[in-house]
Amino acid sequence: MPSRFELANAIRALSMDAVQKANSGHPGAPMGMADIAEVLWNDHLKHNPADPTWPDRDRFVLSNGHGSMLLYSLLHLTGYELSLEELQNFRQLHSKTAGHPEYGYAPGIETTTGPLGQGLANAVGMALAERTLAAQFNRPGHAIVDHHTWCFVGDGCLMEGISHEVASLAGTQRLGKLITFYDDNGISIDGEVEGWFTDDTAKRFEAYGWHVVANVDGHKPEEIQAAIALAKTQDDKPSLIICKTIIGFGAPNKQGKEESHGAALGEDEVAAARKQLDWPHKPFHVPEEIYQGWDAREAGSARQADWQSRFERYAAAYPSEAAQLQRRLKGELPAELGGEKLIQQAQEAGESTASRKASLACLNALGPQLPELLGGSADLAPSNLTFWKGAKAITPEATDGNYLHYGVREFGMAAIMNGIALHGGFVPYGATFLIFMEYMRNAVRMAALMGTKAIYVFTHDSIGLGEDGPTHQPIEQLTTLRSTPNLATWRPCDAVETAAAWNAAIKRHSGPTALVFSRQNLAHQERSKQQLANIQRGGYVLKASVRKDKVVTPDLILIATGSEVGLAMDAAAELEGQGHAVRVVSMPSTYRFDGQDEAYRENVLPRAVTKRLAIEAGHRDFWYKYVGLDGDIIGMSTFGESAPAGDLFKHFGFTVANVVARATALLG
Amino acid sequence: MPSRFELANAIRALSMDAVQKANSGHPGAPMGMADIAEVLWNDHLKHNPADPTWPDRDRFVLSNGHGSMLLYSLLHLTGYELSLEELQNFRQLHSKTAGHPEYGYAPGIETTTGPLGQGLANAVGMALAERTLAAQFNRPGHAIVDHHTWCFVGDGCLMEGISHEVASLAGTQRLGKLITFYDDNGISIDGEVEGWFTDDTAKRFEAYGWHVVANVDGHKPEEIQAAIALAKTQDDKPSLIICKTIIGFGAPNKQGKEESHGAALGEDEVAAARKQLDWPHKPFHVPEEIYQGWDAREAGSARQADWQSRFERYAAAYPSEAAQLQRRLKGELPAELGGEKLIQQAQEAGESTASRKASLACLNALGPQLPELLGGSADLAPSNLTFWKGAKAITPEATDGNYLHYGVREFGMAAIMNGIALHGGFVPYGATFLIFMEYMRNAVRMAALMGTKAIYVFTHDSIGLGEDGPTHQPIEQLTTLRSTPNLATWRPCDAVETAAAWNAAIKRHSGPTALVFSRQNLAHQERSKQQLANIQRGGYVLKASVRKDKVVTPDLILIATGSEVGLAMDAAAELEGQGHAVRVVSMPSTYRFDGQDEAYRENVLPRAVTKRLAIEAGHRDFWYKYVGLDGDIIGMSTFGESAPAGDLFKHFGFTVANVVARATALLG
Repeated sequence: MPSRFELANAIRALSMDAVQKANSGHPGAPMGMADIAEVLWNDHLKHNPADPTWPDRDRFVLSNGHGSMLLYSLLHLTGYELSLEELQNFRQLHSKTAGHPEYGYAPGIETTTGPLGQGLANAVGMALAERTLAAQFNRPGHAIVDHHTWCFVGDGCLMEGISHEVASLAGTQRLGKLITFYDDNGISIDGEVEGWFTDDTAKRFEAYGWHVVANVDGHKPEEIQAAIALAKTQDDKPSLIICKTIIGFGAPNKQGKEESHGAALGEDEVAAARKQLDWPHKPFHVPEEIYQGWDAREAGSARQADWQSRFERYAAAYPSEAAQLQRRLKGELPAELGGEKLIQQAQEAGESTASRKASLACLNALGPQLPELLGGSADLAPSNLTFWKGAKAITPEATDGNYLHYGVREFGMAAIMNGIALHGGFVPYGATFLIFMEYMRNAVRMAALMGTKAIYVFTHDSIGLGEDGPTHQPIEQLTTLRSTPNLATWRPCDAVETAAAWNAAIKRHSGPTALVFSRQNLAHQERSKQQLANIQRGGYVLKASVRKDKVVTPDLILIATGSEVGLAMDAAAELEGQGHAVRVVSMPSTYRFDGQDEAYRENVLPRAVTKRLAIEAGHRDFWYKYVGLDGDIIGMSTFGESAPAGDLFKHFGFTVANVVARATALLG
Repeated sequence: MPSRFELANAIRALSMDAVQKANSGHPGAPMGMADIAEVLWNDHLKHNPADPTWPDRDRFVLSNGHGSMLLYSLLHLTGYELSLEELQNFRQLHSKTAGHPEYGYAPGIETTTGPLGQGLANAVGMALAERTLAAQFNRPGHAIVDHHTWCFVGDGCLMEGISHEVASLAGTQRLGKLITFYDDNGISIDGEVEGWFTDDTAKRFEAYGWHVVANVDGHKPEEIQAAIALAKTQDDKPSLIICKTIIGFGAPNKQGKEESHGAALGEDEVAAARKQLDWPHKPFHVPEEIYQGWDAREAGSARQADWQSRFERYAAAYPSEAAQLQRRLKGELPAELGGEKLIQQAQEAGESTASRKASLACLNALGPQLPELLGGSADLAPSNLTFWKGAKAITPEATDGNYLHYGVREFGMAAIMNGIALHGGFVPYGATFLIFMEYMRNAVRMAALMGTKAIYVFTHDSIGLGEDGPTHQPIEQLTTLRSTPNLATWRPCDAVETAAAWNAAIKRHSGPTALVFSRQNLAHQERSKQQLANIQRGGYVLKASVRKDKVVTPDLILIATGSEVGLAMDAAAELEGQGHAVRVVSMPSTYRFDGQDEAYRENVLPRAVTKRLAIEAGHRDFWYKYVGLDGDIIGMSTFGESAPAGDLFKHFGFTVANVVARATALLG
């Protein structure tokens, strides 16, 4: 029977070997945290390598994602489908073992990590999802949702601001089943952290209401064991276990130094480490008894089988709950959602309203069908209008709610949403002003990268927000969203397109959606049945070009989104009065439009019609994509100003007169 | 003599009147913090309303910027050039009294605030600048730089992650002259904060090494006075004074509630507040004796005159120091900078190197001439290569350094840089990987909005960073930077353009500059004297289109930046070999290129030449602006992958073969 130290050394050896072979990577964290990981994975982690999607598994998040070889080693050693060959292909194209753990690349990777601090936030989201799902579905004697979330963090994670946001919220929410290990090795890339990081971290987390186990020797299994036991007894506080470790433990000349952090140790040092660790085996060779010591397949299958039989008893006793839970865990929508009906009804109602208000109406209509919705706002609920009629705040006392008051924590919110979505059972939506997308920006990108189903409600979408002024007025933000791969962005022009946008967001399973709404009222637009159907295509002809009552090839196309569609329609009417055949294209989602086939796109924007004028109260440059060098753009190229919205639209040229003038110039 | 309460009520009345008149704004914070502000401004703040640029004034930052009427009232009452009429035009177009305090709009506004938490970061930057400048210039008996930085923060600021980053660093740096007041009113937009914000804030800040004065009644001047006195005795710790306040104090039916936070109180409630506060005056009327109680002009002028005479004694004793200090405070560059020489030398050296390495060479060359450079990196100095030969870390023990180890705190870094730049005397530069621009994104935007001279060093600029993979590979980030108004972005193609970019950044006084550098080597490009000069124009013809040894109108233009310029040059050579006249345009800065006159731009990109192929390892859509709908773009439209850089460039089509193929297709 191998010793714990020998088992841990398998992680160290695989990590340093893989980094050495790739001549790229981070051996320090895996070698430093190997002993902690060994105790956690061998004695505590509830998982089944044969089924990485088992819903009631514990979640494990490596927030210090640069230590990816730690995770890959663990997955390989415990029996996941991750071969030695994959480990040998660390950081190579098409391998499952990317530089940082990438969700979907290898089984058992619960989330993509690397951008520091976000893994901790994901873990908070997972722990919140677990508690909420348990509260919604568990019944007396049937604890079918009951697992822990474990997280590793490094110094970098704890310096990042997002760690404050999510640790604070986790404390307030009393997430007792979240247990985090801090790899307190005193080293970051610039060197010894005491020059830039002198927090009393234990005290800081106690201030958040966490249970802190401090001064654990991260290389002594018995101390780690005792700390975990203590943490597990804490039902109503998240735990932070502060482990003193030596970065690069085992590399005799580089351990404890920055040199072991982010580069291959070098052949000589790897050899020296083998001696130091008494690990005489060849590179990438793990002796059979070590594999046996790690193998978690049998225990994992037994655990899952036990859960399965418990779940069946639950399903027998609570069939509708079980069916709903299974549906939600699969990410399937209810059969009768009524999204199309909602669009139809909005068209019939013909209401002119702010799209943020229309959004609330959508939530009120769809919410009752979608118990998986887990909403929230970063302290702007009364402005974002996201607290719908059926919303109920999640608190430590009311854990079965469906709405989180995230507080003024945009970045934390978006990264927690990723954790909630990855956990499963929920579709998170979260709101803030469009401009504060910037605070949460990288978590939105991570959602797009991972393909999580997160829905962002971004209100106050332009200079139209008025008096709050340039700090609050988005200019370049739409461009950023639209330039993000795999992010579906919608900026609807009225209540009808708003319903279509929500419908599309709910039905999208391959990635996040950004819904961009106005603060101010937007005029309702009339549509034919075909036009109504075409909204889903992202861009469509809202007004045909007409001359002498006949639809003709347009002399000019106006392209607009959101609040500028009404303006385009008014300008088109005036231009038509002057004898010009003007088409208006409403383009609520360039993402969707770009995904249409060539024929449809040509139909909406015929190549032959080069006189095109795009109108949007966002940064103008984005629109060259659709108007080319022969067209024109009425957009923003400066920051906004503080004034009532009407004054601002006039000041920046969003008037019928200006559109007509610029169109006339184009028409020549 | 009016009482303190009456003086404070002038703030309350002006604030509620202005918000009422605009029917927009935030009365709650000004009314809640009026008593604190009154004590601070009347008894402690060292300033001179007649000269808001006096270098040794105290700095005052309203981090909860939505309470702008608090600041406008203070400026008006104490005698700054901010008339009652301006207060009556609160939140109107072209007024000085924007919805949030906008730097440069009214005298006495030290920074633009509104996006929460950043004001605190600015204040940390100002306090750091003060201490560093003092250490560099003060001499025994000559404390010519010696002032406090005061900051007001609300619950929102303290929930934001950035508050963690900067408070932690301020504690580590022991910034004893930073004194912050926390408006602990228990209310945020979603309601009573106890549902989402339960931090023990005193304990949290103690964990950062701050001196905390807790449980101060923010409506009792004598308690505020005592707390300030205590804070001023702390030389080596920043102070947090936690003031219990009532939001909207004085509005009988709305105080203490969210209703008073972000909307006009309403005529009835304003009238009721007048009664409650015993303030019988008409709207916007301030009695003369109240004005007298506030007037800070005489005392301010005396203070400044005293400083001026002390400065003159200093100048007599230390003429060269005084001259340098004056130059730096004016934001002027030394007469002999040698930026052009540097470009010239780089061209002559002809070295092929990574642009991040070329950047370090620039710092080594320019640094000794520029003692105002205050560098730093968010814990990536060995990768960003920003710690130049003359860099010296700023620590509590070595306060006269010129380099900050910011730790893993990107957002904090960028917002601190804004504070440093606004304080004066320094040109801050700060570095991280380009992808982590996203963590600091909104502070970069704030720099552009305010026009602060901040220089960002963004290295690892594309998939060219290789193995770290998609989380670390920028795609859409260049588009975001280039779409930000007033931000000058450079992505140089070799050491020569790198020198030109640094030279431009140093010489730009109207806003920030983003320098985007490669991790990997870039081939040196040959240039004529004219080409060398043209780099400053942002885009220029690097290779003329030649047929039979004659320069001819190009059949096709290749446009590229950074690492793709070398690729374009190689492809052009191959295309030329096939008989095509191909021009290569290097476009290191679209910002600079767009600022050239029409004739120059037409010369580089003649309208008649519609066959254009842009090549950049960033998001493709940006380039429609220069190639239109008749051109083509080789760029990224997906996320990257983890692999060696060479494999990735090949995988994503950045090869001579692909450029030639796509060019050939365009040529038809």
